[in-house]
Amino acid sequence: MALHAAILAGGSGTRFWPLSTGNRPKHLLALLGRRTLLEETAARLRGLVPPSRTLVVTARSQAAEVRRLLPRLPAGAVVAEPRPRNTAAAIALAAARVLAEDPGGVLLVLPADHWIPDAASFRRTMAAAAERARTAGTLVLVGVEPDRPATGYGYLKVGKRTGDGRGLEVRAVDRFTEKPDRRTAERRLRAGGWLWNAGMFAWRADAFLEEARRHLPDLHRALVASGAAVRGGAALARAYDRAPAVSVDYGVLEKSDRVEMVAAGFRWDDLGSFAALARHLPRDAAGNASRGRLLAVDARGVVAVGPEGHLTAVLGVEGLAVITVPGATVVVPLDRCEEVRALGEAAGRRRRRP
Amino acid sequence: MALHAAILAGGSGTRFWPLSTGNRPKHLLALLGRRTLLEETAARLRGLVPPSRTLVVTARSQAAEVRRLLPRLPAGAVVAEPRPRNTAAAIALAAARVLAEDPGGVLLVLPADHWIPDAASFRRTMAAAAERARTAGTLVLVGVEPDRPATGYGYLKVGKRTGDGRGLEVRAVDRFTEKPDRRTAERRLRAGGWLWNAGMFAWRADAFLEEARRHLPDLHRALVASGAAVRGGAALARAYDRAPAVSVDYGVLEKSDRVEMVAAGFRWDDLGSFAALARHLPRDAAGNASRGRLLAVDARGVVAVGPEGHLTAVLGVEGLAVITVPGATVVVPLDRCEEVRALGEAAGRRRRRP
Repeated sequence: MALHAAILAGGSGTRFWPLSTGNRPKHLLALLGRRTLLEETAARLRGLVPPSRTLVVTARSQAAEVRRLLPRLPAGAVVAEPRPRNTAAAIALAAARVLAEDPGGVLLVLPADHWIPDAASFRRTMAAAAERARTAGTLVLVGVEPDRPATGYGYLKVGKRTGDGRGLEVRAVDRFTEKPDRRTAERRLRAGGWLWNAGMFAWRADAFLEEARRHLPDLHRALVASGAAVRGGAALARAYDRAPAVSVDYGVLEKSDRVEMVAAGFRWDDLGSFAALARHLPRDAAGNASRGRLLAVDARGVVAVGPEGHLTAVLGVEGLAVITVPGATVVVPLDRCEEVRALGEAAGRRRRRP
Repeated sequence: MALHAAILAGGSGTRFWPLSTGNRPKHLLALLGRRTLLEETAARLRGLVPPSRTLVVTARSQAAEVRRLLPRLPAGAVVAEPRPRNTAAAIALAAARVLAEDPGGVLLVLPADHWIPDAASFRRTMAAAAERARTAGTLVLVGVEPDRPATGYGYLKVGKRTGDGRGLEVRAVDRFTEKPDRRTAERRLRAGGWLWNAGMFAWRADAFLEEARRHLPDLHRALVASGAAVRGGAALARAYDRAPAVSVDYGVLEKSDRVEMVAAGFRWDDLGSFAALARHLPRDAAGNASRGRLLAVDARGVVAVGPEGHLTAVLGVEGLAVITVPGATVVVPLDRCEEVRALGEAAGRRRRRP
């Protein structure tokens, strides 16, 4: 009946192109400190979940780098998915492994690439969520209080109080919603009673797998009932061939009646774009933020990222991201910075052309 | 009575920072082709002035690179000035050397860092100017017909016809003017009768030195009458210590009554800024120009320069210069691109700070 953690590190996101690429996704970047976001995520668990009970679910192409970055994890703690199958499969895989060795085990599910500066508050919230999940057998979502009308997240409508975990209020989830438009996001911010769905969860492995069996029977059959999740190897590869690719939110949580939520007692950002990154970098008086050397003259709201020792010099520009890596420089307005993904894809297509 | 050339390659300009620096000024850059502007300048003389009668006046710090780039020039053809002393001293130095070996020699004076795509027309104009200078003993300026209201050049007011050189009209210069403001430049373009002063000249060495003696007696005494220009070495260094730093336009041409002009029969640009460079690079349909790989999505009027193989990717921006060199990236609006000089100086100051 111990506490386990599953860190989801399977993304191949290119929202930080050219910093991130298919083989070096966001969680393998040191975006805000000396350590990668993955290392920060693992470090945040210290005192809450020991390395011996931490799993990292990642992609095959990233497994060696994940092991290198997290040397304190035991052999076998880094689980490489045979292919990407969205979050439901990754979490079911982790839950099946936890259940096999700890029938009453409680599992924290944590994305590997978020920004959470206050680890102590994070641990208090997660411990409370885990306690509630253990005693009530529910699927506990950790929602984040909005501080701006963000359009990049799903929202959870806060329902009636259902109990508490170590003094933290537990509430029902009245509604799941997809990413809203700006107007809707603003209305929710004003009205209150909505939390961002931050992709962090606590539940007993058995409770989650029971809900997965009910709502995603194909996935459960292929991956869990078959024993493939625990056996790994070729069995796992075959199971992944058959498993549907669906998010845990859409596939399980939105359909389950055993869902509850707690509010995160900590600051959080999913660092979804260069604009998000800029919010957390040191800034000068004109709002220019940088990772690396920046010389800004008559410039405002610029975020610059460059390799060690590289100078980014800007003059007379406003609201731009200027990102340099060995081999590429990208310039894009911060309010369109989510389009670097498409830009990176176009660059990839062009490179493959003869 | 042969034709000689003096290529002025002493600049330390930083108008192309970070491409150009004190030790790598514009004429040592391959801005528009595979060859540096200095090499292009020397190549343009082929068939008009042989390497054996070509001098390059440059700075000490650049002399080795100039020799490396122009291996066909004889030993002694690359003259290193002991210190920068503006154009009057550099030209007097070259003229004194020509006079010492060829008493009737005619000298073409040519900046090393201009863009002149049509070498045959260039040679025709310069041959005509040289012929007029030889027979009339005048100082012949080569002016360029304006095709836009440029504010970066001095202007020459075209006077009455005074003769011709090989069929090219020769005219008096009614007035020299400094760089005009935009309004004045527009008025001159509409009115006609003005040429840009392109810094290209033809004159007999004896005629130029006679005018230098009259209008810049200190310079003439220190550098020419003393024999220092021809002796070189320590004598030249002492002469440069004493010589005034003044442009040939201000020091000699604006004061002389032996000045004439011909109109250039060729396209010309002094490549004074990234905006000027953009005029001559290949462009896409949206006016984006690049030297190196450029990926432009929903972008207009961008000029990108990067090292071999480096990709510059821009999205949603307009009218920007994006310049990357190993160690630095610079982003500046094209209409403020002359300010990169100040930006480079600021970067230099910052680097020297502890």
